[in-house]
Amino acid sequence: MKEIKGGVCAAEGFTAGGIRCGIKKGNSQKKDLALIYSLKPCIVSAMFTTNKVQAACIQVSKENISDRKLRAVIVNSGNANACTGDEGLAAAKRMAHLASNVLEVDAKDVAVASTGVIGVPLPIEVIEKNINALKASLRDDETGNADALEAIMTTDTRKKEIAVEIEIDGKAVRIGAMAKGSGMIHPNMATMLCFITTDAAIDAAALEKSLNSAVKHSFNRLTVDGDTSTNDMVLIMANGEAGNKILTESDVDFSTFNKALEYVCIYLTRLMARDGEGATKLVTVTVTGASDDFIAEKLAKSAASSSLVKTACFGADANWGRVLCAMGYAGVDFNAEKTTVNFKSKAGTIKVCQDGKSISFSEEKAKEILSEEEIEICISLEDGRGSAEVWGCDLTYDYVKINGDYRS
Amino acid sequence: MKEIKGGVCAAEGFTAGGIRCGIKKGNSQKKDLALIYSLKPCIVSAMFTTNKVQAACIQVSKENISDRKLRAVIVNSGNANACTGDEGLAAAKRMAHLASNVLEVDAKDVAVASTGVIGVPLPIEVIEKNINALKASLRDDETGNADALEAIMTTDTRKKEIAVEIEIDGKAVRIGAMAKGSGMIHPNMATMLCFITTDAAIDAAALEKSLNSAVKHSFNRLTVDGDTSTNDMVLIMANGEAGNKILTESDVDFSTFNKALEYVCIYLTRLMARDGEGATKLVTVTVTGASDDFIAEKLAKSAASSSLVKTACFGADANWGRVLCAMGYAGVDFNAEKTTVNFKSKAGTIKVCQDGKSISFSEEKAKEILSEEEIEICISLEDGRGSAEVWGCDLTYDYVKINGDYRS
Repeated sequence: MKEIKGGVCAAEGFTAGGIRCGIKKGNSQKKDLALIYSLKPCIVSAMFTTNKVQAACIQVSKENISDRKLRAVIVNSGNANACTGDEGLAAAKRMAHLASNVLEVDAKDVAVASTGVIGVPLPIEVIEKNINALKASLRDDETGNADALEAIMTTDTRKKEIAVEIEIDGKAVRIGAMAKGSGMIHPNMATMLCFITTDAAIDAAALEKSLNSAVKHSFNRLTVDGDTSTNDMVLIMANGEAGNKILTESDVDFSTFNKALEYVCIYLTRLMARDGEGATKLVTVTVTGASDDFIAEKLAKSAASSSLVKTACFGADANWGRVLCAMGYAGVDFNAEKTTVNFKSKAGTIKVCQDGKSISFSEEKAKEILSEEEIEICISLEDGRGSAEVWGCDLTYDYVKINGDYRS
Repeated sequence: MKEIKGGVCAAEGFTAGGIRCGIKKGNSQKKDLALIYSLKPCIVSAMFTTNKVQAACIQVSKENISDRKLRAVIVNSGNANACTGDEGLAAAKRMAHLASNVLEVDAKDVAVASTGVIGVPLPIEVIEKNINALKASLRDDETGNADALEAIMTTDTRKKEIAVEIEIDGKAVRIGAMAKGSGMIHPNMATMLCFITTDAAIDAAALEKSLNSAVKHSFNRLTVDGDTSTNDMVLIMANGEAGNKILTESDVDFSTFNKALEYVCIYLTRLMARDGEGATKLVTVTVTGASDDFIAEKLAKSAASSSLVKTACFGADANWGRVLCAMGYAGVDFNAEKTTVNFKSKAGTIKVCQDGKSISFSEEKAKEILSEEEIEICISLEDGRGSAEVWGCDLTYDYVKINGDYRS
């Protein structure tokens, strides 16, 4: 497997574009409308938010992918089109219709995604006015990918994209992806917007299985602030342009595809954690030696989600007691008296807790380790062979600043 | 019922005291060791943290109240004596023993509580050296209460105490209480330190029932940061000095006692929410019209716990969409399309969402309402008659500041 350029346009037969149509407020010249389009029919699989309050786009997209076929996704930023009632639903349907019209495909073959402020009517008229310009922005190269990526961002400060190439059945197969997301992110669902393209030929069941597994080990192990959005969506389109024999679950090459897709998803997950709203640090929490993977994941998530652990990471304070405390309210059993905690970064590794108790360590060295931009909290138990890796970030002044007056 | 002065010393036969023994770090002259002592034997009831990692004092106190009898509580601040292993357990037992020695009571009749940093050995020798001074500090008046209260505080910026007087069986009965707690507070357990004294004569079963009910409707509906401490404890001692006929669950006066105890607990809960670490505002979330009280509580807690709702409260930003979003991931069913949200404070009331959708409202007026120090988010549903009231606070720069380097 090698990393390649081009994001969602890296896979053969995919185009993307993005423009500014005026949904984002103020004098901003930021793009806010994106389109990803496959020249050929695609098999699709997707995962959506588990929030009971679901944006209109989620309802429309769920329906439109139900036949597992898709050609395009239209995405706006600056407005979530959530809590907008029947008018919002009509607007989301209209978005799909407008895109299908200019692309000359069936409206049922277009998925819709929105991200931004909740409860404000979506100005569908500016989308309508700019739909031809959106189509005209489609490119099959890095430019198209970059334009679309810019148009799906909200409070993101970093671009999140990746593409990889693998070989399946003697053919070069590409997987490309873009994601947005920095706040309102919490495990247990498709937790932001992520659009993945691949030119692999793969059957619908295999694609779904591969996506579910990759999301379970990546986006569902990401936590920024404990809030689960009304709009989140991870969607993969596969158009078969690589020309490989159609991949099924029983093929030996299926695991090659799985690994590549998981690599792509974990890569984007780490970028999102690193770009958590206001975050200065990527915090990885690993648990090993748990009774099973489920318990390991629960313990790691609890530590990564704790506001007290997160603020300690911000302050580079080796307050390991908060880590044990957060594990203690995770709601699962573990042997606290056999818990070891190490803090790790490129500046080194330091053991701060053994057998659930304090051990003497250099506060100075610990501070140095925790002052790095990527830090790891390594928890080891003696309960079994379960393990999990979870990603989060620190909690900072800027998180409060960004969210204290988001709508203005 | 009337409010009276004296805190835990308001009830007949109770004394309290507090001194500085040197557990709190640095050049601080803050008191850090407290004692509450009843001249007569008491019936006791208590609730403890549900965290799987429990401080040594929790283990000792659980054992010592198991016979439902108690005489005293010794409390230190500045060190949680949690994650301190066998030495920590020995230190907690020693604390009880030292207090019982000077008070000339059985060591099993002393409860122990600790609060402060986790994972640092408790310097039991400074407690030993100062135990006589601690006993000498005992007073049966406001001074004794004030000294003890100061000695149990950590990051608290406000003193949390109250006493009330009611009449039962023709006798004046008093309930007094003190509490500490501002960070690491989250519903579903006894969520901080709270010591309650009463001179009511009451049987053990009635006392337990009354405490459980009061805690359910007060401390368990408080959320500051989602972290559940290893050390939390709510404890009530009843010494019968009021001279009323022993109160049982079947007495008509039992509800008088219940109401007074609940009043005391809610009063302290509100003080704790108002004093949440870094908080500038008390945020009360009420849900009415839910299918049942359980669902109402889950929805209210989810909204009150959301980092995004809390930062919006800090910024006085009427971002009601975040309220609906937080309700959506509460994990219970409700009809989002029949949800109405009002923001309320002494500056007025404003409706911001009806039938789950935006309605037009004055942003200026909303900002004015949300700029008050006590604000209320009123959610009404049309699903039934369930209701709940939950207390929390905003999330601010100072929360990050206080917790970014707590140990230093």
